[in-house]
Amino acid sequence: MRRIGIDIGGTQLRVATFEEDGALVTKASMPNDHTKGPAENLERLACAIEGFGIDYEGVGIGCPGPLDFSLGRILNPPNLPGWEGFDIVRWFEDRLGCRAVLNNDANVAGLAEARLGAGRGLGSVVYLTVSTGVGAAYVLDGHIVGGAHSCAAEVFNMVVVDRPSVRLGMNGGALEDQASGTAIGRMASERLGMPVDAAQVFALRREGNEVACAVVDDAATMLARGVCNISCVVDPDIFVFGGSVALYNPDFVDLVHKKARDLVLNPDTLTFALAECGGDAGLMGAALLV
Amino acid sequence: MRRIGIDIGGTQLRVATFEEDGALVTKASMPNDHTKGPAENLERLACAIEGFGIDYEGVGIGCPGPLDFSLGRILNPPNLPGWEGFDIVRWFEDRLGCRAVLNNDANVAGLAEARLGAGRGLGSVVYLTVSTGVGAAYVLDGHIVGGAHSCAAEVFNMVVVDRPSVRLGMNGGALEDQASGTAIGRMASERLGMPVDAAQVFALRREGNEVACAVVDDAATMLARGVCNISCVVDPDIFVFGGSVALYNPDFVDLVHKKARDLVLNPDTLTFALAECGGDAGLMGAALLV
Repeated sequence: MRRIGIDIGGTQLRVATFEEDGALVTKASMPNDHTKGPAENLERLACAIEGFGIDYEGVGIGCPGPLDFSLGRILNPPNLPGWEGFDIVRWFEDRLGCRAVLNNDANVAGLAEARLGAGRGLGSVVYLTVSTGVGAAYVLDGHIVGGAHSCAAEVFNMVVVDRPSVRLGMNGGALEDQASGTAIGRMASERLGMPVDAAQVFALRREGNEVACAVVDDAATMLARGVCNISCVVDPDIFVFGGSVALYNPDFVDLVHKKARDLVLNPDTLTFALAECGGDAGLMGAALLV
Repeated sequence: MRRIGIDIGGTQLRVATFEEDGALVTKASMPNDHTKGPAENLERLACAIEGFGIDYEGVGIGCPGPLDFSLGRILNPPNLPGWEGFDIVRWFEDRLGCRAVLNNDANVAGLAEARLGAGRGLGSVVYLTVSTGVGAAYVLDGHIVGGAHSCAAEVFNMVVVDRPSVRLGMNGGALEDQASGTAIGRMASERLGMPVDAAQVFALRREGNEVACAVVDDAATMLARGVCNISCVVDPDIFVFGGSVALYNPDFVDLVHKKARDLVLNPDTLTFALAECGGDAGLMGAALLV
């Protein structure tokens, strides 16, 4: 029997079918039309699934948070306007007559890495994605640890330094506001006096620009503290790094590794790897939910 | 069949038998004689177990860390001089002809709280002990999460603030050096210009002493950051507080709760309780290991 994975994004809706071993068979994508509600958008996905004409047990859904996994409900993700409170699991179960399972996008990408990617064969995997934001997943014995309130691995608000809050509702010194791509761009823009994004900061750093070097070094220090603090709590076999900032800048991940080794009691317990599942990790992981 | 729990301490060795429901039946304790090696000390424990004259499947052992749980070996705990590298599990298995299971003292106390104490009936429990040091346990679905290298829940070295390191080998701003009883005593002593311990600081605070109030408030802020950071990673159903600083000062725990609610995204996800198993938690939890 095939597996079906669904990836709900702010701009795109995607669906794919996989063999039991994780090999991708078919894939479809369509724009998420914000002028229409979730049911109208998902109806096109459901038609695509029916069009595949295959046998399947259920569908797994990856979606931006915050969500309530146990209720199968979307709460209020900022990039899914109009989807607030939508019972997405019930919708798919009613529409397709099969089981549906929901989890957030970072968790399903982490599940794919743990089962089929850089963490395969290992008992405990922490997946860290560094791109616009900082997300994570904690996968123990092949299963996502979701937490009591669907909030496990929501490390973006972890306090790693004494600095003022830069966004309403976020902690001062929050990991995401010190180490994400957005944060790297913000900090460099402030110090350079002109707007730059993270990609430009890393390019300037390669040219030896002192401000860019200092900003990236600081972000690496903060991310290393995050790694140390996660390691203090769950001591995983491996940290797998995904997200554009990590994947396009492996030397940045190496720098985080070097700094984190200085912070943990036993540096040899700290193993780092880059994500291996590529752009379809979210679909693969969603398919593994069922 | 009864359960047997063993508690290895720097000054005392203790053993107890429990009914299946956790009721204590018999207990024995003896000094840990540092002029003798571990085998000679444990031989007296083994004789006590034989003297109980009961049927049992195996023994659970709680011991100060660092340990290697999977190898059943003591590494180099500072308060067990002469026990370095001792294969305590193999020793008990050879001596008693039964199964033996090892875990650290904070983890077994947390296991007792999760199964029989303040966390009973809940899926995920974080136990935090605040006394001389700061220790923790993470119990998921009734089982200790030990980590890939026996280092899960070793939160004492978590970075919560930008401050210089106060002990060799520990991080600057490490949770234990900012929020333990020892830290509270150290910080108050520095500011008062005379040596005081944590109990004296809390007594001075009750009298309205400004320095004592400020030091305790700062420790509560740091502990609240620790709680927030742990919650970001594993999102437990409950935080259970043990250790003398917490148990003798429930208003301190309330202050930590108040501050931590301000740091997590959803304050209603944060439930606090005081430990309920008392002084025998370590023995009870050790007995639950088998």
